[in-house]
Amino acid sequence: MTDPPARSPARILVTGARGFLGAPAIAALAARGHEVHAVTRSPVPPSDDLTWHTADLLQDGTARALVRDVRPTHLLHLAWETTHGAFWASPENVTWLSRSLDLVTAFAESGGDRIVAAGTCAEYAWDGSVCTEYVTPMEPATLYGACKHAFNVAASSYALHCGIGFAWGRVFYPYGPGEPPGRFVSSVANAIAAGQTATTTSGDKVRDFVYVDDVAEAFAILMDAPYVGAINICTGMPMRLGDVAAETARQLNGTGLLQVGEESDRTGEPRVLIGDGRRLAALGWVPSVSIEQGIALTIEGLGT
Amino acid sequence: MTDPPARSPARILVTGARGFLGAPAIAALAARGHEVHAVTRSPVPPSDDLTWHTADLLQDGTARALVRDVRPTHLLHLAWETTHGAFWASPENVTWLSRSLDLVTAFAESGGDRIVAAGTCAEYAWDGSVCTEYVTPMEPATLYGACKHAFNVAASSYALHCGIGFAWGRVFYPYGPGEPPGRFVSSVANAIAAGQTATTTSGDKVRDFVYVDDVAEAFAILMDAPYVGAINICTGMPMRLGDVAAETARQLNGTGLLQVGEESDRTGEPRVLIGDGRRLAALGWVPSVSIEQGIALTIEGLGT
Repeated sequence: MTDPPARSPARILVTGARGFLGAPAIAALAARGHEVHAVTRSPVPPSDDLTWHTADLLQDGTARALVRDVRPTHLLHLAWETTHGAFWASPENVTWLSRSLDLVTAFAESGGDRIVAAGTCAEYAWDGSVCTEYVTPMEPATLYGACKHAFNVAASSYALHCGIGFAWGRVFYPYGPGEPPGRFVSSVANAIAAGQTATTTSGDKVRDFVYVDDVAEAFAILMDAPYVGAINICTGMPMRLGDVAAETARQLNGTGLLQVGEESDRTGEPRVLIGDGRRLAALGWVPSVSIEQGIALTIEGLGT
Repeated sequence: MTDPPARSPARILVTGARGFLGAPAIAALAARGHEVHAVTRSPVPPSDDLTWHTADLLQDGTARALVRDVRPTHLLHLAWETTHGAFWASPENVTWLSRSLDLVTAFAESGGDRIVAAGTCAEYAWDGSVCTEYVTPMEPATLYGACKHAFNVAASSYALHCGIGFAWGRVFYPYGPGEPPGRFVSSVANAIAAGQTATTTSGDKVRDFVYVDDVAEAFAILMDAPYVGAINICTGMPMRLGDVAAETARQLNGTGLLQVGEESDRTGEPRVLIGDGRRLAALGWVPSVSIEQGIALTIEGLGT
């Protein structure tokens, strides 16, 4: 019996490479020996372990030129509208959908092999049940969820017709160092670290938090695995927002500054939004840190 | 008690205006007194009752320029990849999705009020049950169905956010004069009219045929109605393909030339594909002709 042949490194084009999920994702892919080509809108200093490309994917024709230049075998598409608060209803979601389709067709026409892209728990019906792939109805309540879902519907069918592998990682509640201002853990931590009162919406809401490096590792696993279709990127561990806020405050010795439930909830926000993580676990993914450790790392990363 | 104020005519941009559904649709809209601006790829002679615009919507930027020029209050979007046989799996479906989204955002940004667009029964799960809006699962089996469905998911959510009315007419089996070569009735009729043997796939398949002028009238009703969301354009009357072929042959005195079931079915094609027509009927739509009359009109239109 011989060992299976070593997997040859892929030439991977990564969009959204400087984003919250993109930064650890390019590190995870480079660590696996892949040739990483990272896309960014504004120039960055050269790196030893990857190649940066400056391109604005929202401009017509940019995707096609970029793909012709790089000739990637693999595509990790993370770029999308992510401005905190605004992204749920921004018309930019439609533009990202349209330009993402252009990117996918350009990639296929240049002979690409495999696509992994970022979906969202906001594609599912927010009915309080555990979100399970191919079981829970797809009823996005937001424009963001609708455009992400529409991308998966079209791109997965197109990839199937082209003979390209396509995996769609539905990200639940990513958190960690570098998260955009206004996200849950950092907004509580920032207020308390500044000695101010930290207010939150209802603490009874239950979410499926995933540490950002674990999300990145999930995308790296999906890049190397033969998995095709939608898959949740979640821990499957329900956590109360009130408990996450309390733990954040405790670590900062600021429990007295925390006022849970002071802010009103966003209309239509579900009380419970958690995922079924069994498919991802079956691919060998395990969370690397506990919520307590993740909060500590998020606090460590504040202001860096 | 006074009469309600007369509805003011809309300025309607119609894409796909020279297509099988588009040609009767522009006639139906003009008959209702609307100002019709019809889009075509190649120049046509001027008409008295509508304005033609020459534009290729698949070119980047064309939609925006066209909308800026016409400033439509309403949009009837029928254009899509429709090459018979090829359209099910053509990569052009993705391009049409992307460019259709550009058209919708351009229309919204220019202050448009209402969009009506053509969906398809190919968006539904083909499980043999009667397709009912918001009940039957959306599981498109083809790239065509997937891209049409993706358009509805994104565009309907976007329209909701913009305060624009959006109705999505899912067309079942349109037939009639002017249907593209290769469609069911005309392929049987053309063969028999030429004195040749007419072969078909399984005659046991059941479909929901809708006469093309009735489809056009449905779109005209949807343009004037306040209806928002998906709605089937179908009669709800199951018809066996074998019976439709036999009636076509009978009218041409060519029953002996008909060989039903000689061709193999397309993979994945459902045995039964019929719609629930109650929503459309509730808007006042009634089919204008019987299947026998519709076949006679289709035969009359051959070669004209």
